[in-house]
Amino acid sequence: MNITDCKTTLNLHECANEMYQLIAELYPICRSITGNGFRETLRRISKRIPLTVHEVPTGTKVFDWTVPREWNVRDAYIKNSRGEKIVDFHKSNLHVVSYSVPIQQKLSLNDLKAHLFTLPDYPDWIPYRTSYYKEDWGFCLSHKQLLAMQDDTFEVCIDSSLEDGYLTYGEYYLRGESTDEILISCHACHPSLANDNLSGVALATLMAQELSKLTLRYSYRFLFIPGTIGSITWLTLNESKVRNIKHGLVVTGVGDQGKSTYKKSRRGDADIDKAAMHVLKHSGHEYDIIDFFPYGYDERQYCSPGFNLPVGCLMRTPHGRYPEYHTSADNVGFVKPFALADSFSKCLSILHILEHNATYLNQNPKCEPQLGKRGLYQIIGGQADRKTQEMAMLWVLNLSDGCHTLLDIAEKSGINFNTIKNAAYILVENRLLNRS
Amino acid sequence: MNITDCKTTLNLHECANEMYQLIAELYPICRSITGNGFRETLRRISKRIPLTVHEVPTGTKVFDWTVPREWNVRDAYIKNSRGEKIVDFHKSNLHVVSYSVPIQQKLSLNDLKAHLFTLPDYPDWIPYRTSYYKEDWGFCLSHKQLLAMQDDTFEVCIDSSLEDGYLTYGEYYLRGESTDEILISCHACHPSLANDNLSGVALATLMAQELSKLTLRYSYRFLFIPGTIGSITWLTLNESKVRNIKHGLVVTGVGDQGKSTYKKSRRGDADIDKAAMHVLKHSGHEYDIIDFFPYGYDERQYCSPGFNLPVGCLMRTPHGRYPEYHTSADNVGFVKPFALADSFSKCLSILHILEHNATYLNQNPKCEPQLGKRGLYQIIGGQADRKTQEMAMLWVLNLSDGCHTLLDIAEKSGINFNTIKNAAYILVENRLLNRS
Amino acid sequence: MNITDCKTTLNLHECANEMYQLIAELYPICRSITGNGFRETLRRISKRIPLTVHEVPTGTKVFDWTVPREWNVRDAYIKNSRGEKIVDFHKSNLHVVSYSVPIQQKLSLNDLKAHLFTLPDYPDWIPYRTSYYKEDWGFCLSHKQLLAMQDDTFEVCIDSSLEDGYLTYGEYYLRGESTDEILISCHACHPSLANDNLSGVALATLMAQELSKLTLRYSYRFLFIPGTIGSITWLTLNESKVRNIKHGLVVTGVGDQGKSTYKKSRRGDADIDKAAMHVLKHSGHEYDIIDFFPYGYDERQYCSPGFNLPVGCLMRTPHGRYPEYHTSADNVGFVKPFALADSFSKCLSILHILEHNATYLNQNPKCEPQLGKRGLYQIIGGQADRKTQEMAMLWVLNLSDGCHTLLDIAEKSGINFNTIKNAAYILVENRLLNRS
Repeated sequence: MNITDCKTTLNLHECANEMYQLIAELYPICRSITGNGFRETLRRISKRIPLTVHEVPTGTKVFDWTVPREWNVRDAYIKNSRGEKIVDFHKSNLHVVSYSVPIQQKLSLNDLKAHLFTLPDYPDWIPYRTSYYKEDWGFCLSHKQLLAMQDDTFEVCIDSSLEDGYLTYGEYYLRGESTDEILISCHACHPSLANDNLSGVALATLMAQELSKLTLRYSYRFLFIPGTIGSITWLTLNESKVRNIKHGLVVTGVGDQGKSTYKKSRRGDADIDKAAMHVLKHSGHEYDIIDFFPYGYDERQYCSPGFNLPVGCLMRTPHGRYPEYHTSADNVGFVKPFALADSFSKCLSILHILEHNATYLNQNPKCEPQLGKRGLYQIIGGQADRKTQEMAMLWVLNLSDGCHTLLDIAEKSGINFNTIKNAAYILVENRLLNRS
Repeated sequence: MNITDCKTTLNLHECANEMYQLIAELYPICRSITGNGFRETLRRISKRIPLTVHEVPTGTKVFDWTVPREWNVRDAYIKNSRGEKIVDFHKSNLHVVSYSVPIQQKLSLNDLKAHLFTLPDYPDWIPYRTSYYKEDWGFCLSHKQLLAMQDDTFEVCIDSSLEDGYLTYGEYYLRGESTDEILISCHACHPSLANDNLSGVALATLMAQELSKLTLRYSYRFLFIPGTIGSITWLTLNESKVRNIKHGLVVTGVGDQGKSTYKKSRRGDADIDKAAMHVLKHSGHEYDIIDFFPYGYDERQYCSPGFNLPVGCLMRTPHGRYPEYHTSADNVGFVKPFALADSFSKCLSILHILEHNATYLNQNPKCEPQLGKRGLYQIIGGQADRKTQEMAMLWVLNLSDGCHTLLDIAEKSGINFNTIKNAAYILVENRLLNRS
Repeated sequence: MNITDCKTTLNLHECANEMYQLIAELYPICRSITGNGFRETLRRISKRIPLTVHEVPTGTKVFDWTVPREWNVRDAYIKNSRGEKIVDFHKSNLHVVSYSVPIQQKLSLNDLKAHLFTLPDYPDWIPYRTSYYKEDWGFCLSHKQLLAMQDDTFEVCIDSSLEDGYLTYGEYYLRGESTDEILISCHACHPSLANDNLSGVALATLMAQELSKLTLRYSYRFLFIPGTIGSITWLTLNESKVRNIKHGLVVTGVGDQGKSTYKKSRRGDADIDKAAMHVLKHSGHEYDIIDFFPYGYDERQYCSPGFNLPVGCLMRTPHGRYPEYHTSADNVGFVKPFALADSFSKCLSILHILEHNATYLNQNPKCEPQLGKRGLYQIIGGQADRKTQEMAMLWVLNLSDGCHTLLDIAEKSGINFNTIKNAAYILVENRLLNRS
């Protein structure tokens, strides 16, 4: 089966359910950029796809950075003087600032406050905070919890370890016909955050699962990495493989109800950009296309000037543009199966274009070939469809001069890539067109 | 006399009348892509311009196509059981489907219906149908006629012949100073259709007549051909001449009341495209510019990728965008003399630009030359006109750096080509400018 | 002190006052394209900046032109038969047509009228007229004055001289670190006209004064010249220096209340064009950008095709677009200190960009450098400012690939040049960036 058949036979509803279940399964795990939560996450994904898990030792130099110590946390709480846990890591792993150093201490409310983070505008939500590269500790709690705290002596405990260990990441390389590859990258370093983090993880996992059943033109590389330090580490260790990456997508934040957004690669006119824009334009839904900017997710690293890879970012509402972002409100309920299904479908359509996009040569470039004598008029489908198919054939013939890919032809004609591709395939069968 | 003088002295009203009369004269003839109707049409045109008539034998291979058998029809009718001709070819040659094979048969209404074509939305109009490349027969009639037909036994007769013969086309080559040539192509293969077909024929004929009186820079080639197969045939037989074609226009549908439309060549930025757009933009009338698409008239063949000639299409309402298209309502009354005059004038203006467009070199490129000492301020016409003329001279001087044609300068300055051209000629007379 | 410090420490209010005083001081002088009024003007400017005064003899060939005879006028009047001076040069030097030949004559009102110029639409204003290259004489007066003249015998006297002498212009060359230079050009050939003429003179003078106190990257050349013939003369005599001119501005009409207007150089995409557009876009004020056209001020000569210098024109309301233009209403009151201050500030900002614009190379092009470990997060200013500064650093790093100047990066990021520049300087200090 190839990707075209997959597109038509796939049960999107089922896919969405599987993604949703995976999100729900991974949600409770306390992930950070290193540590056992990340390992456990990879272990669960490994049940679905044959992931290679890499362990990179603390202290490894990765370009300008250094792999940090490994962080693990077993427990964390704030107790009041009556011994009541008023903040409890086991209720939400967002309560502890990620990479907090171990602490066991008694403090007044006033002294404690310097280590407490809340969201006054959203008094029910717990914020998500990290302190990866500065030794510190802290607690995140809802503003309501803070307001309820009376002056008291509080016992704070963070039973964490910050020790030499490893940075862990997962990789799945799916060999296609060519060594040219398409990179699908997602970050998996956030604790209980569903849209930012797990939606991308779930989409990449399911996509890998589906693609592994197909005959593929490209090889695919799926990366499940901690944000920033993960892509920097991978790029350092795999610099020689970078030249194989012909297209790439960072997928993240693909489960919220907002419209789909594609952030272009730094190049701005790479095939991945054209393919993603084509899919969104022909989707019949509202969408946003945004230019590359050097902020966001791991596209920042892939698109750094020394690499300048053709890697864009597929998401729905961009990070920071929805209030639930980086809070406890980005929970499993915030993610919607229909949105996951839609993102999956669009991602698949983008890959479908890349799999099939190519430059062809009209074998009969002088005047039109006589389509009628080959039975190529009125051969397919209903009346409206037939007219479009005929126009698609004429467009493909007219522009297959070696300077236009099928995607270029789709864009110039305003006709959906799929129709253009089908027209090309019919023309190839009829020896009117050859792959250039 | 050159084309500029022609533009100013031409009696457009008279031209329009001559075009209209030619349309009326040719309208009753039953043309098809081959046959005596086409020959008769060329014979009439030959009275006005010295046409060379080419006869290409049936069976001749023309690129991917083959010249078809020659079709002629003497009579065709449907009689009811009372012997009344209820559909009569002699009343309208649209009644018989073009290229119908000979038939003489009695049928029930039901069996006959498979061979009848009507336009239910326009019950008074007869549609125009062809079956060039598939052996079949049929009648076109008004929907009212069809509704009036009772169950009966009908006698159908098509006294046609479909035999080895010739494809006929007319060509007029008008030699100018250069062997570089401008192609003017029109199709003449439709029976009684006035706007689609005859308006283009009439415009091309009159244009050839007028141009033949002038001193011309370019050579002109006028083609009166059957659509599609005619241009394919010409291109096959004249491949070595194609390199001389520097600009070209397909003219058709130039007599309806709609606004002028120019369809760009496949190149999109050829001089013919720039010239036509300039003329329409400065016409003071509404107009449409449309990008090339591989459908329509013979520009499809001239702009096939193996030729990619700079050939656009000048028309008014595009084919298929008016209900009268390909029906008996596209009759002589549908064509308007004012529209023919306007199309003729615009076509002449386009050719005028091409005849005069050139790149010049400012002979005094460092600082402005002193126009005043040469009497070049206030030398022409009234106050407003003078200011524009002076600006035109300054623009021509400023941009005549070898990289801008006069047409480019006209576009950049927003000034009409004619004013720019006049300014250039004055500057040449004053030795401030040379043809590069 | 460099130009950045100057921008922040400059007292714009004081600058505006000095410009305004200089305009008021120069206003009464009767200037023309040659003569003692021009000399006197340069003498006054010389008190502020060390001007070199050039005297070019009458008859000198300057490209297609010839330096004209020198014109001076001592007195001019029209007396009625009662001996009353009804038009008096000493009341307004606009009363005499510039370059009027000497005349002493008695005439009837009717004969005199051929030599009188008024503005019927603005009956209180005196127009400004010249007759440089055609021997003639005339008076300009208010339409009210004309209407008050009864039939009478009038004595007209123009005590002028038109004799071999010199064309005078002033030049101030300010040496910077490089011989690459920025040209600032203004015309100073108009008599009592404040906005057209003196506002540019005043801005150029003050700018020269301020820049002379600074350490500069570029050398600066200030020209105080008669319009047209002055720039033609300078270009003729200094052709070998032209190659040093990397950027240039004609400044004129910079004191009226209208919005700032920048007219692009003929190139249209020169650095001066980008810098001026950036400044106007980020100014927070309304503005206009207009394409080059071969009319206006001395940019016509600098941008003639043989030179094609990157010289634009900074003004407020363009010449001819305000009724006071070339009339006695363009007086000292028409010019506003706030407008002078604003124009000065914008001009300085443009120069600031040119002084600092450069291409840098990211020294750590593979992935982002770790800004945190260098203390480059949260190092500057308040919260909002900090975020912009961090984004500016990321943009500079991402686009410093050798293909983007800081100005390009400012444009692409939408961030003010100054913020981008500061980010670049911080990155240079941190050895993350080098001047390419």
